[in-house]
Amino acid sequence: MLSLIKITAQAVYLKRTLFNDPIYGFIAIETDLILQLINHRFFQRLRRISQMGLSSLVYPGAHHTRFEHALGAMHVMQKAIEVLTQKGIAISAEENEAMQIAILLHDIGHGPFSHASEKILLKGKTHEELSLRIIQNLNEEFKGALGLAIQIFTNSYPRKFMHQLVSSQIDVDRLDYLKRDSFYTGVTEGNINTQRILNTMHVEEENLVFESKGIHSLEKFLLARRLMYWQVYLHKTSLAAELLLVKVLERFWELVNSGEEVLSPTHSFYPLIHRSSDESLSDSVLLHYLTLEDSNILHLLKQWLGHADFVLRSLSKQILFRQLPKIKIQSEPFDTKILAHKGERLQDRSISQKEIAYFVFSGSISNQTYSPDHTQILLKNKSGKPTPLAETIDYLDFNTFSKPLYRYYLCYPKRHFSL
Amino acid sequence: MLSLIKITAQAVYLKRTLFNDPIYGFIAIETDLILQLINHRFFQRLRRISQMGLSSLVYPGAHHTRFEHALGAMHVMQKAIEVLTQKGIAISAEENEAMQIAILLHDIGHGPFSHASEKILLKGKTHEELSLRIIQNLNEEFKGALGLAIQIFTNSYPRKFMHQLVSSQIDVDRLDYLKRDSFYTGVTEGNINTQRILNTMHVEEENLVFESKGIHSLEKFLLARRLMYWQVYLHKTSLAAELLLVKVLERFWELVNSGEEVLSPTHSFYPLIHRSSDESLSDSVLLHYLTLEDSNILHLLKQWLGHADFVLRSLSKQILFRQLPKIKIQSEPFDTKILAHKGERLQDRSISQKEIAYFVFSGSISNQTYSPDHTQILLKNKSGKPTPLAETIDYLDFNTFSKPLYRYYLCYPKRHFSL
Amino acid sequence: MLSLIKITAQAVYLKRTLFNDPIYGFIAIETDLILQLINHRFFQRLRRISQMGLSSLVYPGAHHTRFEHALGAMHVMQKAIEVLTQKGIAISAEENEAMQIAILLHDIGHGPFSHASEKILLKGKTHEELSLRIIQNLNEEFKGALGLAIQIFTNSYPRKFMHQLVSSQIDVDRLDYLKRDSFYTGVTEGNINTQRILNTMHVEEENLVFESKGIHSLEKFLLARRLMYWQVYLHKTSLAAELLLVKVLERFWELVNSGEEVLSPTHSFYPLIHRSSDESLSDSVLLHYLTLEDSNILHLLKQWLGHADFVLRSLSKQILFRQLPKIKIQSEPFDTKILAHKGERLQDRSISQKEIAYFVFSGSISNQTYSPDHTQILLKNKSGKPTPLAETIDYLDFNTFSKPLYRYYLCYPKRHFSL
Amino acid sequence: MLSLIKITAQAVYLKRTLFNDPIYGFIAIETDLILQLINHRFFQRLRRISQMGLSSLVYPGAHHTRFEHALGAMHVMQKAIEVLTQKGIAISAEENEAMQIAILLHDIGHGPFSHASEKILLKGKTHEELSLRIIQNLNEEFKGALGLAIQIFTNSYPRKFMHQLVSSQIDVDRLDYLKRDSFYTGVTEGNINTQRILNTMHVEEENLVFESKGIHSLEKFLLARRLMYWQVYLHKTSLAAELLLVKVLERFWELVNSGEEVLSPTHSFYPLIHRSSDESLSDSVLLHYLTLEDSNILHLLKQWLGHADFVLRSLSKQILFRQLPKIKIQSEPFDTKILAHKGERLQDRSISQKEIAYFVFSGSISNQTYSPDHTQILLKNKSGKPTPLAETIDYLDFNTFSKPLYRYYLCYPKRHFSL
Repeated sequence: MLSLIKITAQAVYLKRTLFNDPIYGFIAIETDLILQLINHRFFQRLRRISQMGLSSLVYPGAHHTRFEHALGAMHVMQKAIEVLTQKGIAISAEENEAMQIAILLHDIGHGPFSHASEKILLKGKTHEELSLRIIQNLNEEFKGALGLAIQIFTNSYPRKFMHQLVSSQIDVDRLDYLKRDSFYTGVTEGNINTQRILNTMHVEEENLVFESKGIHSLEKFLLARRLMYWQVYLHKTSLAAELLLVKVLERFWELVNSGEEVLSPTHSFYPLIHRSSDESLSDSVLLHYLTLEDSNILHLLKQWLGHADFVLRSLSKQILFRQLPKIKIQSEPFDTKILAHKGERLQDRSISQKEIAYFVFSGSISNQTYSPDHTQILLKNKSGKPTPLAETIDYLDFNTFSKPLYRYYLCYPKRHFSL
Repeated sequence: MLSLIKITAQAVYLKRTLFNDPIYGFIAIETDLILQLINHRFFQRLRRISQMGLSSLVYPGAHHTRFEHALGAMHVMQKAIEVLTQKGIAISAEENEAMQIAILLHDIGHGPFSHASEKILLKGKTHEELSLRIIQNLNEEFKGALGLAIQIFTNSYPRKFMHQLVSSQIDVDRLDYLKRDSFYTGVTEGNINTQRILNTMHVEEENLVFESKGIHSLEKFLLARRLMYWQVYLHKTSLAAELLLVKVLERFWELVNSGEEVLSPTHSFYPLIHRSSDESLSDSVLLHYLTLEDSNILHLLKQWLGHADFVLRSLSKQILFRQLPKIKIQSEPFDTKILAHKGERLQDRSISQKEIAYFVFSGSISNQTYSPDHTQILLKNKSGKPTPLAETIDYLDFNTFSKPLYRYYLCYPKRHFSL
Repeated sequence: MLSLIKITAQAVYLKRTLFNDPIYGFIAIETDLILQLINHRFFQRLRRISQMGLSSLVYPGAHHTRFEHALGAMHVMQKAIEVLTQKGIAISAEENEAMQIAILLHDIGHGPFSHASEKILLKGKTHEELSLRIIQNLNEEFKGALGLAIQIFTNSYPRKFMHQLVSSQIDVDRLDYLKRDSFYTGVTEGNINTQRILNTMHVEEENLVFESKGIHSLEKFLLARRLMYWQVYLHKTSLAAELLLVKVLERFWELVNSGEEVLSPTHSFYPLIHRSSDESLSDSVLLHYLTLEDSNILHLLKQWLGHADFVLRSLSKQILFRQLPKIKIQSEPFDTKILAHKGERLQDRSISQKEIAYFVFSGSISNQTYSPDHTQILLKNKSGKPTPLAETIDYLDFNTFSKPLYRYYLCYPKRHFSL
Repeated sequence: MLSLIKITAQAVYLKRTLFNDPIYGFIAIETDLILQLINHRFFQRLRRISQMGLSSLVYPGAHHTRFEHALGAMHVMQKAIEVLTQKGIAISAEENEAMQIAILLHDIGHGPFSHASEKILLKGKTHEELSLRIIQNLNEEFKGALGLAIQIFTNSYPRKFMHQLVSSQIDVDRLDYLKRDSFYTGVTEGNINTQRILNTMHVEEENLVFESKGIHSLEKFLLARRLMYWQVYLHKTSLAAELLLVKVLERFWELVNSGEEVLSPTHSFYPLIHRSSDESLSDSVLLHYLTLEDSNILHLLKQWLGHADFVLRSLSKQILFRQLPKIKIQSEPFDTKILAHKGERLQDRSISQKEIAYFVFSGSISNQTYSPDHTQILLKNKSGKPTPLAETIDYLDFNTFSKPLYRYYLCYPKRHFSL
């Protein structure tokens, strides 16, 4: 009669560390190693790196950080493991811990303002590559204790679903950040029913699959993600702000490289700008990179408010006092004539063509809601054979839906722009 | 300098009636006439009519009623009027009140368990027709005070947007019920951002239009609606329960018509079953209909638990004790052989073919997320000319999306079914 | 290193039944026996018994039922067990199931509209006594499987904390109903942080204690409870409605006992009114009681709208059409002169003194927020020795706070009252 | 018949600016002047000043800023004005705007990390004094347009309720920050029902009063505030962090004053440390103060990680890497012997007595939930005469409740503390 009681204390809890979280209530830390990783200064640094870059200029509540997101994603992983375990999927204690570590550290490579600085600070390195490097460093420090987590993170562990939970079309990373970003921005349309999606997870032939009864929640997930992209992540005003940040950093690089600006070796960018030109990234530069946080950028912007170079000065002011440029978005590239025309107004003020390019510029952004080739979302049907989601939903035009959507932007100063 | 202060008391508030609402906090009653309509017994009756029929058998929290929904929709109408007024659309006090009344009474024709009894109790009359009849009766009682509300309700008032707010692809009815049903069922994916949608409403050439910046919220709205249909409104278990309710009422009608059951004139169904066969609906039958509530049906089902007719008895038991039949759903009609096969098991128990049809039956349901022809959702573009939504969203296959989706169901008793 | 991994599947989950709940998301059913109890018709009946009686006349969203509350309280019990287990308190699988059953069935004795009918239907029996009787009946049906649950329910099991979780100053019953009633009424002040309170639970010498760091949540809990009492449970308008319900039932009893009304043996009240006068309650009367639901009362009220007795008729109308009497509340008993004075107006209409008492009446209600004697809330201090809460909180005047608060009410018809 | 329609567009809305807010959904900007003030760099600066100082070290979600709080409080003011206007209180357009400005700017004087730096940066000036100075400066810049707002802010306007809404026991400031801080910390017990409290507001003889039916919400408000104080604002861990911040700044001041550290005139603290010693605060120092934000402090702490002075170095590390000291709280002052004893461990490491005081220190904090003398909360009774809340609530021991509660703390390094 009595068959399904689930919970037993396998080990005595020496001390139960809980983090407060406005979304999940409490987040439990389940092993000592995880607690040590969270307390590590590399991870504590994430407390001071905004999850959403400069989006708080549009969504004033969006000041949350990579620290909270990493903890939240780990919490969702715990819940996913709980569901799968209850469905009879064997997950050992070692695997359990490694899955949690892999997701906890997946974003540890992010720099100041997350994506906003990624293209500049260590040009040529994505935050994923940096994360892996840092995890490997931590693995040495913790004497190999992160080996399994690294296998899962790099998808070299044979049980594919563990990696798929960390990184795939529907992973615990996205399950947390969509919910979290929706919460802090107030864009409630992006809220997803994590619990319902988790409840339909299963594993078949070591692949993550979803029970077909959850199909509407999956649809909703895809649409929520799409909506968050266009309405929040690529919101034209915060896009403008992030583009300015890229521009101001580029200008600074330019000034240094041209010798107009001489960096003191104690300047926070010195090791990044003066690193040896070969591809490899030295440990010492990486360690320096790990000291950079939002406040370093803010501090520079504030200093630059009084800088001799009017480009640096003006761009900094635009960001700090939210005097953002005009930005237009369209689905076709902008005609170069328009670009030239918008630049003309500045020429009157005797600004060189090269400098104009810091104030009038165009480019493109894209978003791909669903990627049909790699790591398809698989549905578990009664018949048994997992079916790709794209073959199941008829009303979505997956050809269109799966195509990356490009948008083209044009930025230029407002009419009464003062330098 | 001072230009935009919005609120002034146009009239002294003698008394401010507020309704508590778990979704909006408080709902204000803005005119005396509205308060009198709410206090009318026709409207009070809605307190005892479930909004979602028998869905509480699947979603135990879904016990909310037509009363709350009607008040909620009126509240959303108030907010829509507020937004439009602030955008410079002139709405007179009379129109304002009439718009509120039209939506307040739009569902007053619903019978017990809302849609579940609609097909049976006054066969041939939809709840919309009944609502109009009742509003007209009330108009007489209130000496013509509802004339403008009737014009809006029947779309004969020239300012089309007023009707469109009451009834169209995105109206305040849907804005309330999606949110409300999502709240009470816990299916959070159906939650929509009413405020954001309202904020993008505008009026152009007396038609309701939506500013194009709201496009993602509109997409989300359509998908939320679709999701609520398949996951909640047409959930197979509550569909089974509602089909049983139809069956049990049909059986009762049959017994009465065949003379096997003799109704006392005091029986709550007497005036409905014995009404004159012509098309028109007499006021006296209508008034009787207006005494019927969920409890009348429940009371009969409970009585029928002890009824001599085993069909009536068994179906009542299945509903009341939630011993629901199996139900299968597929996108193709069921083969008549399967139907026959499922019926065979009952034949062993010497049940006639006609009676078997109460336990084994099939049929179809459909849902059309977006209707391309009538009352298109219109987007207001910068260029000015309103564009239909279908021409703007590229990733949705509107041909498929706009087609009614049919699903076919087959109901039959569980294996250990006891009559 | 690896020490704290918590979750293992002790047994294969044959099938995982989940209930949707708007508050907790999903509620899991953990054993077969529990599932069978939920499916039992005694328990299914709770789907049709309002948790909050007639409160929906004041808080229109408050249509939730005893069914949801019982499941919700069981869910909170599961969480409490989880916390205690993680803190090293050994709870066997049998105890775990029994604790869940005890709380699941704790309210199974409630009659129509919960407390509203309690004083009338089986006079002299509280719902707790009836619950126990029904659990004992179920125990026989399930061949003794509920023995341990009964011990816990009746506080005869030596591990006191198990009973204390079911019934004490802070039990899972209250943790669920405060949260649930707050949710459905929209009185957000009654919302409590269940998770935070659960997290501070511990067991010392088999008694339930709370870690002292949770003291503010406990204070908040006491105040939330107090607020819900005065603002919701004893709201004067819903009090008036419930008093009317008592009055109308009393009137009916009176008419039957005086022979003015003759009951058919099929009348739903027949077995209750004509039961033998001795104290004991026969099984057959109990079984009949278990067929009564809200709809039985509603059905009678609706019938009585056309009853010859004007008292029955008028009171029914007042409830059904929400034409409620005036009610005054004060902290001193009402002077009998006022009562007489209010009655005089009715005398003009030639109503007898005895009948007047159905329309003009007074009485008292009380609420005791904190009971200092029995089952004190105990705080676990670092020193070890549990301390009663009352000795720890200095700013609350526990002498006053612990005293039952009495309020006196006076009901009388509105001025333009028509019989 | 038609009497209560409330909303009319008094003026054409040229452009409707809305801010996204995760708590209220949208916040509307109602006049041009308000929009200009929000866009002013003094106000934009609040985007980078944490509302809750270093509390995010305990509540990781608490990264919200003074910017959001100021907008939120203005929104609550709009709602309060709406309620009062509907109750017939005449509020002119000028008063309306001035009330909004007064609350919008009430916290504009806050420095980095809000209260944490208040005691150090401009010693002797509270943030309220600074706010007034800044508002006066803005008034000059806006040519006297803020005159009425200043009267309200300084309580020199005869209509007292306007100031009381800005600053009293229950003002819109508290209504916003309790709700907001509860939201971001996840301490849901601090959530209050703003709408319910607003709905009971009224004005009598130009004083703010509360209708007596709202008494339970007021009780709840007081308790929520008390709970937030002890559980959140004075949480011992974030208290420890803020005390460290004070200590590290004090140390820096000391080093500069003793000449051990020489400040460059471009150092962000130079004008603050080297300002003339007289009481008055020059405009130039004030303007410099207005350039300081959280990032300035963070930048210094990060620099100090490599500072020659081990005190500066160690304290900075403790904050940035969250290696916080032990902190004990009790209701009696700590014995100086304990302080001496805790210091001894450090003496072994040859640290001077003066330096030890940066690592081992004690002090007191206090909180007064309800202040009985000034600006009593007044209840409006039916009799008419406003009654102080303290005379109405019997169960709260107002003598205790109104007394400031003192707590004494003792901070000292953890056992394995490394400098």
